[in-house]
Amino acid sequence: MNPSSSLLLTDLYQMNMIQAYLDHGETKTAVFEFFVRKLPSRRGFLMAAGLEQALQYLENLHFSAEEIEWLASTRRFDKSLLDRLADFRFTGDVHAMPEGRIFFANEPILRVTAPMPQAQLVETRLINILHFQTLIASKAARMVLAAPGKLLVDFGLRRAHGAEAGLMAARASYIAGFAGTATMLAEQIFSIPTYGTMAHSFVEAYDTESAAFESFAQSRPQNLTLLIDTYDTETAARKVVALAPRLAARGVRIAAVRLDSGDLIPLARSVRGILDDGGLSYVSIFASGGLDEDYLAEIVQAGAPIDGFGIGTSLTTSSDVPALDCAYKLQEYAGQPRRKRSSGKATWPGRKQVWRRYGPDGRMIGDTLSTEIDSYSGEQLVEPIMKDGHRLGPPPALAEIRTRARHELERLPEALRELEPGMTYPVDVADALVTLAAEVDRRLAQNEGIAH
Amino acid sequence: MNPSSSLLLTDLYQMNMIQAYLDHGETKTAVFEFFVRKLPSRRGFLMAAGLEQALQYLENLHFSAEEIEWLASTRRFDKSLLDRLADFRFTGDVHAMPEGRIFFANEPILRVTAPMPQAQLVETRLINILHFQTLIASKAARMVLAAPGKLLVDFGLRRAHGAEAGLMAARASYIAGFAGTATMLAEQIFSIPTYGTMAHSFVEAYDTESAAFESFAQSRPQNLTLLIDTYDTETAARKVVALAPRLAARGVRIAAVRLDSGDLIPLARSVRGILDDGGLSYVSIFASGGLDEDYLAEIVQAGAPIDGFGIGTSLTTSSDVPALDCAYKLQEYAGQPRRKRSSGKATWPGRKQVWRRYGPDGRMIGDTLSTEIDSYSGEQLVEPIMKDGHRLGPPPALAEIRTRARHELERLPEALRELEPGMTYPVDVADALVTLAAEVDRRLAQNEGIAH
Repeated sequence: MNPSSSLLLTDLYQMNMIQAYLDHGETKTAVFEFFVRKLPSRRGFLMAAGLEQALQYLENLHFSAEEIEWLASTRRFDKSLLDRLADFRFTGDVHAMPEGRIFFANEPILRVTAPMPQAQLVETRLINILHFQTLIASKAARMVLAAPGKLLVDFGLRRAHGAEAGLMAARASYIAGFAGTATMLAEQIFSIPTYGTMAHSFVEAYDTESAAFESFAQSRPQNLTLLIDTYDTETAARKVVALAPRLAARGVRIAAVRLDSGDLIPLARSVRGILDDGGLSYVSIFASGGLDEDYLAEIVQAGAPIDGFGIGTSLTTSSDVPALDCAYKLQEYAGQPRRKRSSGKATWPGRKQVWRRYGPDGRMIGDTLSTEIDSYSGEQLVEPIMKDGHRLGPPPALAEIRTRARHELERLPEALRELEPGMTYPVDVADALVTLAAEVDRRLAQNEGIAH
Repeated sequence: MNPSSSLLLTDLYQMNMIQAYLDHGETKTAVFEFFVRKLPSRRGFLMAAGLEQALQYLENLHFSAEEIEWLASTRRFDKSLLDRLADFRFTGDVHAMPEGRIFFANEPILRVTAPMPQAQLVETRLINILHFQTLIASKAARMVLAAPGKLLVDFGLRRAHGAEAGLMAARASYIAGFAGTATMLAEQIFSIPTYGTMAHSFVEAYDTESAAFESFAQSRPQNLTLLIDTYDTETAARKVVALAPRLAARGVRIAAVRLDSGDLIPLARSVRGILDDGGLSYVSIFASGGLDEDYLAEIVQAGAPIDGFGIGTSLTTSSDVPALDCAYKLQEYAGQPRRKRSSGKATWPGRKQVWRRYGPDGRMIGDTLSTEIDSYSGEQLVEPIMKDGHRLGPPPALAEIRTRARHELERLPEALRELEPGMTYPVDVADALVTLAAEVDRRLAQNEGIAH
């Protein structure tokens, strides 16, 4: 069973609505947009990610014979619906911001234009895909900004929320500027560089720490990294100094030591001193264990001699903000703009575009959220990606997305590069959009007046 | 590509260590235990879940030809290793607490006893599986305790961290006492009851709210639930009252209305009044939108007339505590107990058992963490589950696990049933275990003394 490719990875209400839509011929063109309603207080910006997996999902959209059979066995749906589901394919259009783009509240990063049942069916899984990678890319970008020039590696598979989360967190953090991941599957699937050292269990399995180091060095001499905090970190650093000449005699050079516990700032200084005094100034120090962007910033600010970081739980769960307030909302149906007005969740209607302006220094200075057909100054962020169910071009290479992400981070206003965002980025709502919302409300009031 | 079944869903360092273990013949029996180091401050207890998926993973453990080929293509590993990996199967023993059990800090909920390379290889994915379901079952249990007798439904797939998280959150919350989920795949795979209503998009697609309600009622008359907050909740409640006789004439009875925004306590009271005044006292009120256990407790305490709840993000991401400080640690190798002593992460060595005592009222009063061979009073919580790679019995039905979880929650001390735990549950460490840890330290000191 592969949950990630099943069309039943959706909410029951989607099927209920599709049955009702088909019963009543409500299969006209619907336009849905995916956006984040409100930025979390500790996020001055977000980074779009996950589009590639969303497109793959749409391209491969179909119910298997087994799924149709199971749906039939629930006796909840008409045969006519099941027959139509058996032929279900995605034939719609997609507009989106490319992955790696910076975006802000209320700005659509994906738009689906398709017959209503199709556009509705895909809601749950599209949100599930786009939300998670965007969440993680946005978190990882904070770490990249907090530790400029440092080697950052995703160590978070074990505490990620399941298999797909672990894999996709490796991808999203790589997009945002991480050097790589410990997750081998991410190398196999996405060619993301993998990094790996050794675990405490390896050290414990040997009678002495030095014996463990020697054994490991013999088998894994390339980019040799020794974990030195199993018993006592400073003692272990001295053992590394003692071991180095023996290994050198066999042509093996120690690349790094890893610290995984304790107060990393004083410990790294002490270990650096021991290594340098022992002639191992070429050995770098890699740290892991309970790191997040705040700890990274503290370490960097203190000038602690740590060269690289393995970051786990805080990255792959986005632990301070494990979810974004995002939505996939109907903005137009049968040629008419639509909106909900629920308390605190009202939406801007219609197909939208985002225009971004830059200052003389190349930094972003403000966006305008407009209707699709209006024209404003600046760069248009929402691009056509898929037409009638087919991509308009080949998928960009991950390297290209990564480069885009780096440029985007460089163009952020300085106040948004801080961990505590020093400003709210200005996103204007175009007059035409305000007018359109008022028109939708007026039409709705008229309809309701006539109906009662 | 199915990430959930790939053996490459592991950290690179596992493969590095396995290469070194095999090179040096370190394939003797290793004992690893999985436990939570420290309970988060807002968790007075945890609930074990995910064992079934962990066992399935161990049973199916093998590298595919494609994976071996890919590993070879990385040129990182010897041919002798790849040949051995191609034949790799799990032949070890597993002891565990059954799913649905309540447990506390430092108590092992899983023990793996297997040749070192096997026991090491499975570390990452075993943690990934057990951590997530345990996290979610523990969160869901808080919601169950906060809203006794209420219908609780998992609505969280869209914001769960990927496909597997959405699916397994449905399972874990069902174990803890949820009535069901919106996720259809959870019904297909686990026979968990599904619940579904309608979305705002459905209401918006029609010219009037009443037209949407009528259309939906015609297609989906069973357990008919109408979403009433798209424009104005109280106005919509009046439309429901007006609609009811027309539907009744066609034999359709409205089962419930759903509120998804606004201040739920006053809104539910107002809607209840409108429905009751309109003769619809049989229509129940279902609420969703931004719910967590604190909001549930507030609603219940206020006596607001809400009969059921759809809970999303806070459940499937365990939003206040999105990760547990858990570990899978080597406790014994080659017949000798082992432990790490890293700062803040020292472990108790050896194979362990947990003994639980109950008071005269049947409530839990204290646990003892002991070595496996000692005998204490109370119930033994860690049971043999798998021997030589084979299960010792058929997997328990989900209903049985659910019943166990319910009994466990009933046996919790009253102070731990509160959302702010009123006590720290006493877990004694047996003298024999303290002695064993001292022996390990002494042996280690001797070994290191000899080695230097």
